[in-house]
Amino acid sequence: MMSTTRAWHLMSRPTGLPTMDNFALKEAALPELQDGWARVENQWLSVDPYMRGRMNDVRSYVPPFALGEPMQGGAVGTVVESRAPSLAVGDKVFHMLGWREAAAGPAEAFNKLPPLPVPDHQWLGNLGLTGGTAYFGLLRVAEAKEGDIVFVSAAAGAVGSAVVQIAKAKGMKVIGAAGGAEKCEWVLSLGADAALDYKSGPIAKLLADAAPDGIDVYFDNVGGDHLDAALGAARQRARFAICGMIEDYNSGSSHSFRNLLRIIGSRITIKGFIYTDYLSEIADFYRDMGGWIASGQVTSRETVREGIEAAPQAFLDLFSGANIGKMLVRL
Amino acid sequence: MMSTTRAWHLMSRPTGLPTMDNFALKEAALPELQDGWARVENQWLSVDPYMRGRMNDVRSYVPPFALGEPMQGGAVGTVVESRAPSLAVGDKVFHMLGWREAAAGPAEAFNKLPPLPVPDHQWLGNLGLTGGTAYFGLLRVAEAKEGDIVFVSAAAGAVGSAVVQIAKAKGMKVIGAAGGAEKCEWVLSLGADAALDYKSGPIAKLLADAAPDGIDVYFDNVGGDHLDAALGAARQRARFAICGMIEDYNSGSSHSFRNLLRIIGSRITIKGFIYTDYLSEIADFYRDMGGWIASGQVTSRETVREGIEAAPQAFLDLFSGANIGKMLVRL
Repeated sequence: MMSTTRAWHLMSRPTGLPTMDNFALKEAALPELQDGWARVENQWLSVDPYMRGRMNDVRSYVPPFALGEPMQGGAVGTVVESRAPSLAVGDKVFHMLGWREAAAGPAEAFNKLPPLPVPDHQWLGNLGLTGGTAYFGLLRVAEAKEGDIVFVSAAAGAVGSAVVQIAKAKGMKVIGAAGGAEKCEWVLSLGADAALDYKSGPIAKLLADAAPDGIDVYFDNVGGDHLDAALGAARQRARFAICGMIEDYNSGSSHSFRNLLRIIGSRITIKGFIYTDYLSEIADFYRDMGGWIASGQVTSRETVREGIEAAPQAFLDLFSGANIGKMLVRL
Repeated sequence: MMSTTRAWHLMSRPTGLPTMDNFALKEAALPELQDGWARVENQWLSVDPYMRGRMNDVRSYVPPFALGEPMQGGAVGTVVESRAPSLAVGDKVFHMLGWREAAAGPAEAFNKLPPLPVPDHQWLGNLGLTGGTAYFGLLRVAEAKEGDIVFVSAAAGAVGSAVVQIAKAKGMKVIGAAGGAEKCEWVLSLGADAALDYKSGPIAKLLADAAPDGIDVYFDNVGGDHLDAALGAARQRARFAICGMIEDYNSGSSHSFRNLLRIIGSRITIKGFIYTDYLSEIADFYRDMGGWIASGQVTSRETVREGIEAAPQAFLDLFSGANIGKMLVRL
């Protein structure tokens, strides 16, 4: 039986900020189930800033989206048909065949949700790529430890809000930057010691006032002026985990850095990283994050859009900061 | 007996590129010798780009030069009077009381030249701060290893030319950047696999052509467009040692970076460092560098200015790239 699904296709490669014209919602054929395959209906789709990179035709750590084809991304769904012994109809799974209502593929493409008492969508958030990026970036890449002074940008975003809470759970002092009073209030409610509203003044000045003794760790989601401010505030042997530079995804940096020389004088280490580099340590992450969620030390907030039609606009809204916490699409 | 010396004093703090007006050659009193002290007449003075930082009144890894006082810097001299059992008249020493004709201080301030068959001034060059910075930066900070493709900027400078030769001695492929045909010829003569004349075109294009497969290591002496080009060419898990940013010392960076996002996708590590962090490993450096100099694998070239009067202009000329190899002042 041939079946189809509605899926968002990449129709043209954006230059700068993408627009709705770059995308089209079209019927796509689902491949027929082979032995060892399953078919899944999606309930939750993730939209993430990193997807912008896959819309360019450049070699990177993940291949670019193919033009005229369905895009991919994190999703949670339910198995509705299975020819794989490891998957039963009704099983909940998370997988990377998002941007569509249904998906079919080999059982290895689908991961059964681990038996933790959390809502399904958390596997796209604090227990998924988002939380894992925060966890490994803060603790492994930046080697943040108890007592460190940590600065995190986009602290009201999906990754940033997880960084704030992980840092507090580990006994660090945390300064978060976010845009606007509502976001800053939420960042404080997560336990941050200070929340800096970058719309209220130059972030370098705000950070210097909030951290007169400087910072040990910077978790970068923004780039540009936030990165420069962190360089200016870095203490000796500060460590920077570069997770994202949302200011630069669409246009490249137009910021003129004032503080690059401090890399030398303060012996700063700056490291880029990718969540999947740390999959071999994911048991640590599930143990710690599962525990913090169970104890209430890590909470989450979602900005939810409804229906497959909403997916590209949800994605675009990431770049104007329209989300608080994790941006999700519910089908 | 009270004695004096001519010494260069910092009379005002430069803004931007220093000028001769910032300095004055004046008589300064030499402190009377106490027990355990010695008096030294200097034969060689070092001028180095890092000294620009000490002319600013900012906290850094070394304290700023005091206004109205003699400056300091690397020097080689001869003991002419001693009240210290460890130093005899006639001993050759290297020390940090430069920018002056003579110096007096406790014996611990003076290091007897180790018994290696090299010209005295090498202790300010390949066997001194210059060579040590190259050695530890390349091998420890950037963890460069046999087979790596290494890019080094200011490759005809004191540190850069040492990096080129150490990299070749260790079996790496080396691409050096320098300004002008004469410098590039010298870089090639040191063994570099390619020399890029940054005055002949955009360094990003030159590097992309010379390293179509990318680079594993970047040794940065320049910052700005060279650093951006290196980011653009970096392979997966590339390591950058940030030694200097001569483009930025006087004015801060005005470069708009195009390739910062590659820090993430290529998992680049960028590390600032200071030579003195590695003094505990200096025996390794003397052993290796001494051997390479003895075998002719590492050679040197100097740009020598004559007389104490010449010191500030020699220093200023570093910023216009007037030197090939190590810039020295001979007294």
